[in-house]
Amino acid sequence: MINIALLGCGRIGQVHARSLMGLEGAQVAAVADAMPEAANALAVRTGAKVMEVEDVLASSDIDAVVIGTPTTTHYDLIHGAARAGKAIFCEKPIDLNAGRIRDCLAVVEQHGVPFFIAFNRRFDPNFRALKSQIDAGRIGKVEMVTILSRDPSPPPIGYIKTSGGLFRDMMIHDLDMARFLLGEDPVEVFAHGSCLVDPAIGQAGDVDTAMVSLRTGSGKLCQISNSRRATYGYDQRIEVHGSAGMLRADNVLTSTVEVSDAGGFTRAPTEPFFLERYAAAYTAEMQHFVEVLTAGTPPNPSGIDGLKAQVMADAAQASYEAGAPQALDFS
Amino acid sequence: MINIALLGCGRIGQVHARSLMGLEGAQVAAVADAMPEAANALAVRTGAKVMEVEDVLASSDIDAVVIGTPTTTHYDLIHGAARAGKAIFCEKPIDLNAGRIRDCLAVVEQHGVPFFIAFNRRFDPNFRALKSQIDAGRIGKVEMVTILSRDPSPPPIGYIKTSGGLFRDMMIHDLDMARFLLGEDPVEVFAHGSCLVDPAIGQAGDVDTAMVSLRTGSGKLCQISNSRRATYGYDQRIEVHGSAGMLRADNVLTSTVEVSDAGGFTRAPTEPFFLERYAAAYTAEMQHFVEVLTAGTPPNPSGIDGLKAQVMADAAQASYEAGAPQALDFS
Amino acid sequence: MINIALLGCGRIGQVHARSLMGLEGAQVAAVADAMPEAANALAVRTGAKVMEVEDVLASSDIDAVVIGTPTTTHYDLIHGAARAGKAIFCEKPIDLNAGRIRDCLAVVEQHGVPFFIAFNRRFDPNFRALKSQIDAGRIGKVEMVTILSRDPSPPPIGYIKTSGGLFRDMMIHDLDMARFLLGEDPVEVFAHGSCLVDPAIGQAGDVDTAMVSLRTGSGKLCQISNSRRATYGYDQRIEVHGSAGMLRADNVLTSTVEVSDAGGFTRAPTEPFFLERYAAAYTAEMQHFVEVLTAGTPPNPSGIDGLKAQVMADAAQASYEAGAPQALDFS
Amino acid sequence: MINIALLGCGRIGQVHARSLMGLEGAQVAAVADAMPEAANALAVRTGAKVMEVEDVLASSDIDAVVIGTPTTTHYDLIHGAARAGKAIFCEKPIDLNAGRIRDCLAVVEQHGVPFFIAFNRRFDPNFRALKSQIDAGRIGKVEMVTILSRDPSPPPIGYIKTSGGLFRDMMIHDLDMARFLLGEDPVEVFAHGSCLVDPAIGQAGDVDTAMVSLRTGSGKLCQISNSRRATYGYDQRIEVHGSAGMLRADNVLTSTVEVSDAGGFTRAPTEPFFLERYAAAYTAEMQHFVEVLTAGTPPNPSGIDGLKAQVMADAAQASYEAGAPQALDFS
Repeated sequence: MINIALLGCGRIGQVHARSLMGLEGAQVAAVADAMPEAANALAVRTGAKVMEVEDVLASSDIDAVVIGTPTTTHYDLIHGAARAGKAIFCEKPIDLNAGRIRDCLAVVEQHGVPFFIAFNRRFDPNFRALKSQIDAGRIGKVEMVTILSRDPSPPPIGYIKTSGGLFRDMMIHDLDMARFLLGEDPVEVFAHGSCLVDPAIGQAGDVDTAMVSLRTGSGKLCQISNSRRATYGYDQRIEVHGSAGMLRADNVLTSTVEVSDAGGFTRAPTEPFFLERYAAAYTAEMQHFVEVLTAGTPPNPSGIDGLKAQVMADAAQASYEAGAPQALDFS
Repeated sequence: MINIALLGCGRIGQVHARSLMGLEGAQVAAVADAMPEAANALAVRTGAKVMEVEDVLASSDIDAVVIGTPTTTHYDLIHGAARAGKAIFCEKPIDLNAGRIRDCLAVVEQHGVPFFIAFNRRFDPNFRALKSQIDAGRIGKVEMVTILSRDPSPPPIGYIKTSGGLFRDMMIHDLDMARFLLGEDPVEVFAHGSCLVDPAIGQAGDVDTAMVSLRTGSGKLCQISNSRRATYGYDQRIEVHGSAGMLRADNVLTSTVEVSDAGGFTRAPTEPFFLERYAAAYTAEMQHFVEVLTAGTPPNPSGIDGLKAQVMADAAQASYEAGAPQALDFS
Repeated sequence: MINIALLGCGRIGQVHARSLMGLEGAQVAAVADAMPEAANALAVRTGAKVMEVEDVLASSDIDAVVIGTPTTTHYDLIHGAARAGKAIFCEKPIDLNAGRIRDCLAVVEQHGVPFFIAFNRRFDPNFRALKSQIDAGRIGKVEMVTILSRDPSPPPIGYIKTSGGLFRDMMIHDLDMARFLLGEDPVEVFAHGSCLVDPAIGQAGDVDTAMVSLRTGSGKLCQISNSRRATYGYDQRIEVHGSAGMLRADNVLTSTVEVSDAGGFTRAPTEPFFLERYAAAYTAEMQHFVEVLTAGTPPNPSGIDGLKAQVMADAAQASYEAGAPQALDFS
Repeated sequence: MINIALLGCGRIGQVHARSLMGLEGAQVAAVADAMPEAANALAVRTGAKVMEVEDVLASSDIDAVVIGTPTTTHYDLIHGAARAGKAIFCEKPIDLNAGRIRDCLAVVEQHGVPFFIAFNRRFDPNFRALKSQIDAGRIGKVEMVTILSRDPSPPPIGYIKTSGGLFRDMMIHDLDMARFLLGEDPVEVFAHGSCLVDPAIGQAGDVDTAMVSLRTGSGKLCQISNSRRATYGYDQRIEVHGSAGMLRADNVLTSTVEVSDAGGFTRAPTEPFFLERYAAAYTAEMQHFVEVLTAGTPPNPSGIDGLKAQVMADAAQASYEAGAPQALDFS
């Protein structure tokens, strides 16, 4: 039985706790949070011990940590956990600064601990089915990827201000998905951005609407479309055009029910937001992490994927600011 | 050039005139109608002569007649046209009485004139595509047919009273389609009927809602569902379940546009009613009739199909009245 | 904490065990099965005690039983549990004989124990969403219900022989769903049945293809279509036509992925069979049962629903055999 | 009766002839083509006179010309027709050179003749329905437009070489559609292009795969995706995201038939190419042109729209070549 400590008992920590409680071979052994009530509540639900982070790292009973704390704390926690020899499951982003991410990857490599970066969308059953068909050659060679990703409504302005901006906070998921689906690293990014949803977002120095174009070395192309608001729900669509066919993963709707009347034929809205939309993905990514721990499966995506997505997000932001395409340098 | 006389210049006569004007090899040479204004108007649009029916039948210049007059006049017109050696395109039903239909078929056979019964739905491009796939063996052996057919709103009560009732007026199309798709004559029919849409229809001795079940000699089954009202438009769907797959022809919508908002994803309503829904079918059936005239293609469907559909409709009505299944005797 | 004993540790018992392990307020306290290995395996997974049925009924620690044993044992288990004052969750059917079901309901009533009949489809989130919209008046008055229900492939002939036949074994779910959606008891049933899938089913005295028509006292109509085989998966669709609109619950597909090529646009197949298709329904029905136990919610559906479905299935079978509609007498 | 001369009797000239034959108020009075057989064949079908272009322009009987000749001839024909006072229906593009287009617009303005540029897609019933809903405020303010446009297969290399390249030959339709839907002129364009479909296209100096990003002055964004090949047919989709909803126009399929089997649920392929896909649009644009002639409706789109689309296509090509966004200058 693998003993896992949850660092951070907020919304995402609770999601991971639930996943772990349904999995065999691992258990939530400890929980830690800067807010004692949060830790206590999750301890009651999981039967885990409430611990301080230092004690978690010092404990020989703990095999792995799940880092679900605010982004600013990731750097130190990754360093601490790596030095303590704990396997690491880290929420995205590793850090908002690519240089500091490189530091983290270095210490992880030095101590040889497994490091998993939680790009949960890679584990969505629909996107996995799509990726499997690509890998099986169903559409020949991938030529164009189209990603449409829109949130139901913007986060609070306070969040926006510390988020690193739309490209680093929101589009980073799509940038990782682009790499995942293109099967090849992009070499150039161009970004258009606007503030159309809420002027306060613009005043905070960010955009709420963006379109990005990527090109790989072999000439594959990708478009990403982001908005901080979609009146019809959480919009998460992917399309991959290949030499022998096209694959599309459509939105997940709240039910299969369609109502018809003089207005036409109305299907149900999408799942409201990421917790519902990616519920199965959260479980699947944790199952993968448990396999990493129990079967020695290499973590995938791993730290390098986290670094590359961040480099792409930085470059998209730079492209938007400069009004010019940016070369991508992952070295 | 084949010369065709349109008998009846009402709504359906005008549809056939338009079809003929777009076809090569045939022309509207004459038009006749009990109401002179109707005939004159269509003559202006087509360039045809206004004639009396007797003159049409007596004229050696006229090769064929399209009978689009009220049902009660069909019997005499068919007899007259057959005796005059004119090919006949007849709107459904041939007559409301199966015995009189047999008389018509006898005179048609005696005089050896081509006789086409206008079950227009057989010529809908979607239903033809479905039928072609059945014939090509795409779903193996046909086992179950499901026909959902609902009008947008009931006709006037005055029409209901002379229509012969829902089974003979409306479901007759679906009964013909059932035979067409089953590829085998049904041997038994059972009907449930209700008056749920408008009590006035019930007071007129008719039903406005009906469900019918058919069985063929080899055990194939078919369900038909009819309503005189569908708030979402003209509902015309077909499903055929076979040993190796299923085929469905969905409704034809007014556009491919879908609008999304908090209420969900709304596709356009269906085409409003039969003139729009079956526009292509009207053209295709006339094209077939012109081929009958020019290339000697046997008319299909022909008189026997008109008779069988009427026998089925009579039996459905009888089943509804008796509350018991009825054997089908087409002899 | 409510203590529940699982009687029957086969496939469906394991499903219920899993549901209970994810629910709060109740636990699997005991498991029993005629085959010790099955009981032991489930005991290991749940942490429950293996007990004999008599000991379960005699134990004052057990609050409720979940009956997932073969149908022939239901009668005695219900009697025993009712006399022992245990709440009862019973798999359908209660019994294959309506008279024996009435006996069961009588003993349940006499001892005042809650009795839940597991018509799981009522708890499917899609069908619940559809039913909620009916109840909210979204489509006005219900007029026609259409249920299309097809299994991916027939069960073994051995199962067929003891199943009670298609109407009692398979269509009973749809007959219950018909009552649920019509909001009114049918008064008449007519059935057509055929053996088209496998002659061995016919030799066993059963049908594998059936179409049923129902009528309620107020004239609402319902059609049910069943086949023991659907090459495209487990087909479970519902359509309700009302005075102000139509509701449809489409099949649940294995993913949202569509692949396009020269053959057209291909969406994923349906969920393979009931365990996958109704996974959420199994959880939801158990959650309801726990609420019955903890909050005193009346069980719904309850014994009378189980009886009525069986009466309908018997009448459908009788209609098929007699070739005539049958009146429904639930008294 | 308006007399129209068709200049160019090739494929597109024949399409326009057919449209005119079905419209009232105008007729094909003359046809002209460098190849006498083409002109003669169309004369037979339409009943028009075969004329030389000079005679058409000199004839006082001709009210308007439809220019469907090769692009290189447009310049002289527009000049000639304008000077002769003929109304002009011109196939896109007006010319491959923006300066020469400006010359054409000047001569048209000087002589005050109506000038219609045949961006047929604006007349597609689906795109019109979508645009009507935008104009009616159904989705609030337009924020993002997504256009996916892919041909079934590349044209011959010979055609590619004289086409002006993908941006001017193929994407020009999408660039016009972008302006049409954004409701505002873009101020900047960025293009990514690749040769992925056929190396011979690259050797001819062109791309076969391209993605373009547009930004308007108020910050609206648009993405266009083009490929010279789509194995699943002619892919023509549009999506408009607004502040209050989203509109999508999906592909037009060859039928509504769906076939289901173990592979899933397969809808029909798209219409094969533009003649079928935009059949209704060709008729509607000609109907508009006849209204311009008979009712004095201003032609829309007109010459300025042709110029702006060309400027955008030039800038997209320049962006691709320079690897940098280009400002759009329509002056």
